Amino acid sequence: MTVSLPFTLPDELLIDTGIARRIISEFIRGQLTQTGFERVVLNLSGGLDSALVAFLAVEAIGAENVMCLMLPYRTSSPDSRADAEQVVRRLGTPSLAIDISPIVDGYLESSIAGKEITQLRRGNLAARARMMVAFDQSVPWRGLVIGTGNKTEALLGYSTNYGDNACAFNPIGDLYKSQVRQLAIDVAVPQPILVKAPSADLWPGQTDETEMGLAYEELDRLLYWMVDRRHSREQLIAAGFDGAAIDRVARMVALNEFKRQVPPVAKLTTRTPGVDYLYPRRRPIPRSGG
Amino acid sequence: MTVSLPFTLPDELLIDTGIARRIISEFIRGQLTQTGFERVVLNLSGGLDSALVAFLAVEAIGAENVMCLMLPYRTSSPDSRADAEQVVRRLGTPSLAIDISPIVDGYLESSIAGKEITQLRRGNLAARARMMVAFDQSVPWRGLVIGTGNKTEALLGYSTNYGDNACAFNPIGDLYKSQVRQLAIDVAVPQPILVKAPSADLWPGQTDETEMGLAYEELDRLLYWMVDRRHSREQLIAAGFDGAAIDRVARMVALNEFKRQVPPVAKLTTRTPGVDYLYPRRRPIPRSGG
Repeated sequence: MTVSLPFTLPDELLIDTGIARRIISEFIRGQLTQTGFERVVLNLSGGLDSALVAFLAVEAIGAENVMCLMLPYRTSSPDSRADAEQVVRRLGTPSLAIDISPIVDGYLESSIAGKEITQLRRGNLAARARMMVAFDQSVPWRGLVIGTGNKTEALLGYSTNYGDNACAFNPIGDLYKSQVRQLAIDVAVPQPILVKAPSADLWPGQTDETEMGLAYEELDRLLYWMVDRRHSREQLIAAGFDGAAIDRVARMVALNEFKRQVPPVAKLTTRTPGVDYLYPRRRPIPRSGG
Repeated sequence: MTVSLPFTLPDELLIDTGIARRIISEFIRGQLTQTGFERVVLNLSGGLDSALVAFLAVEAIGAENVMCLMLPYRTSSPDSRADAEQVVRRLGTPSLAIDISPIVDGYLESSIAGKEITQLRRGNLAARARMMVAFDQSVPWRGLVIGTGNKTEALLGYSTNYGDNACAFNPIGDLYKSQVRQLAIDVAVPQPILVKAPSADLWPGQTDETEMGLAYEELDRLLYWMVDRRHSREQLIAAGFDGAAIDRVARMVALNEFKRQVPPVAKLTTRTPGVDYLYPRRRPIPRSGG
């Protein structure tokens, strides 16, 4: 059966899905082994990214080890919840639904913030409340929080810092949205999730592409040639990209550097955590701190 | 006037406070200039670290640009609040008090978590709720969240990930607790804050040193020789450190590597955000994404 999809997969972004799935499975198992855990917990939003991560996590470690959290805010779309439930049913994972409205609204009602709150602030509060709940729920579950942000979001900074970009590790952080789509087709993520308009669901009616002003196909292609292939502005123009779009995207990439780094620390001593005191993550009982 | 202090400052950790204050002032101003901001917001807990940061921030950019947040949970010590108020009065900064109990308790009451919550989970929830509020309040204030964690905490992982270690930048992250104390004496942080037992105040009666099993003087000296001076276990033993303490501290340093890094991402393409796509933070309007 062929279903027409509301997007195309740009040629230059196509990946070998078999290899990608194998690398991701090994990555998930490796991260858990290294840290001494056997389970993961994820925020299943109803969107494509977290649905794909749920499928990949189940492929890597089995459904019984993947806890799917559904954490709606009172303005979240009921469709999102239904889509998330469909993933849980399809995969047979344990799940838990917790309404985050008391967290966010408890703050808004008890502080001066409520008087002047914007949609964006409310959305960021919701994203951070979900982080808070996911990390808390990871304790009784004895699992690690698995990240669900993609490369397009990471480069453009289209995420809430310390919110949806917070995790123990991220299996799809190096995949552009188009590659997430390709992999989602490959693992057979339910069709309604694949075809709906991508949205952070931070407020009703929000869609990523309206906010960013470009379709993901175009964003992904532009980022690929700009970042991965290091093409100059002149080369990008010659390849047919719009100058204004190039400048806007390049500016977003630069301005959001901070979301991809540990916070800067004033350098005052010999070795500074996060600056030049850096080691691979490990789970040893070392004889000395190195 | 000489006041006796309940701690000593280890010789090998003494810093030139004049130079340190100058570097930190320039760091704070540099971080703000680079990002296009003029103000900071900080969580003023009533403890020494955040009090010192308040003094240093005022020294760097003036009291009128430093918003001090006081974010008590219902079990927080009233003394902590009084100490924070004293800093605000001394410095003359704007301040805002918001009770985070509705956030934390709103979650606990509306979820299954309430049934089985531990002190540690409640403490981590409080730390993350404070992060959520600080980042939200930074918006109307038009400032950046300034971090208040020290090097001892960073190396031992004595912090809540995405909680009190979350910030835009950190002026004291490279100073051991003993160096924080030295600098706090130098800038004249109020005496009660200097002499009280350090505590994360995550639950009543908690003190850092009881939890970590060593006085900060000893922890700092051990970390200094282990991390900054790269001494082996044998050299540390020869220098008089206890073998069990060495092993315990080395283990904490290793196990908490993850709190000092961006989360690992499965490497699948040419350039991976947070792995090998890394640039200095900047505020340009670049012609291309580089």
